[in-house]
Amino acid sequence: MALEALKQAIEREGRAIGTEIVKVDGFLNHRIDVALAAEMGKAIHDAFADEQVDAVLTIEASGIAPAMMAAQAFGNVPLIYAKKGEPRNIGNDLYMAEVYSFTRKKIYPIEISRAYLHEGMRVVIVDDFLASGAAMEGLLSICRQARCEVVGIGICVEKGFQNGGRQLREQGYRVVSLAIVDAIRDGKIVLRED
Amino acid sequence: MALEALKQAIEREGRAIGTEIVKVDGFLNHRIDVALAAEMGKAIHDAFADEQVDAVLTIEASGIAPAMMAAQAFGNVPLIYAKKGEPRNIGNDLYMAEVYSFTRKKIYPIEISRAYLHEGMRVVIVDDFLASGAAMEGLLSICRQARCEVVGIGICVEKGFQNGGRQLREQGYRVVSLAIVDAIRDGKIVLRED
Repeated sequence: MALEALKQAIEREGRAIGTEIVKVDGFLNHRIDVALAAEMGKAIHDAFADEQVDAVLTIEASGIAPAMMAAQAFGNVPLIYAKKGEPRNIGNDLYMAEVYSFTRKKIYPIEISRAYLHEGMRVVIVDDFLASGAAMEGLLSICRQARCEVVGIGICVEKGFQNGGRQLREQGYRVVSLAIVDAIRDGKIVLRED
Repeated sequence: MALEALKQAIEREGRAIGTEIVKVDGFLNHRIDVALAAEMGKAIHDAFADEQVDAVLTIEASGIAPAMMAAQAFGNVPLIYAKKGEPRNIGNDLYMAEVYSFTRKKIYPIEISRAYLHEGMRVVIVDDFLASGAAMEGLLSICRQARCEVVGIGICVEKGFQNGGRQLREQGYRVVSLAIVDAIRDGKIVLRED
């Protein structure tokens, strides 16, 4: 299910920092390659084309660009993004979860308005990265609270050397990652071959 | 330059809170109406179709969805979004500005990597809201630091009863707002007629 154009972009522009950080801010999460994002959205759609999908979910901020394109590919279903931080300006009637950020080394809340999720809604969750899976667990908790059905999880870049993807698959989720980084070795990003 | 579909969405789903807050989280900045976002992106493109545009800029998080669609309409130019908060994981070589948030009542930094902006680059700035213009001034400061040329500013919803839009136009910027809220009167959102 890997997306060749994404793997090429990672090989061309991705940078490894230390043994754990994969920086792809040149095309995925600071400056966005819009055509590549559209390809990613289409690939995520194609992976779950057999499913009826009512909405795409993600978390602000870096999930929004690929999730937008996935929502477009699913025929302009709504995109709902969880807000981070203390709730403000989106009302009080919220589903909430807590997420531990390894980058910031602290816990932050995420929330989605109850008005936009309802029982039986079939959703695909999209995010730019999957590493430990902490943010994804937060979104899944919100989906359980709302009794939504998570029909798929579409990830742009999975860090295969961390546990998030394995744990989600063991829980039975359909996880599709468009590129999987198996390791950072000698300062180089090692991508999984198909 | 108003976009009829956006005005209709505001009339149908927008909510006024107090005398200053316009909530459009049902279609613009929490749950996204993707088809409407594409129309907004196209309308922003059309407003500046006479300009050569090298990139679209915005600020995370709520600017990303409409800015993505504008970047697509401009022929898949890169979308660059400023990050909020203390810099992390995007390197040290940054343009920075400080923005006062009226919602959160505090100053926060925004930053864009120096690698992605360069002298003479022609950019359109897109955001979901324009009110006091504080966030926009931060982005404009970064553009001045980078010696980029701001050929246009595209806004989804301008609060015409606050000063941001007027000040930007007085400074000579081409500001295009797809809907302008002139007032909140008796709990109702009053939109400017074309």
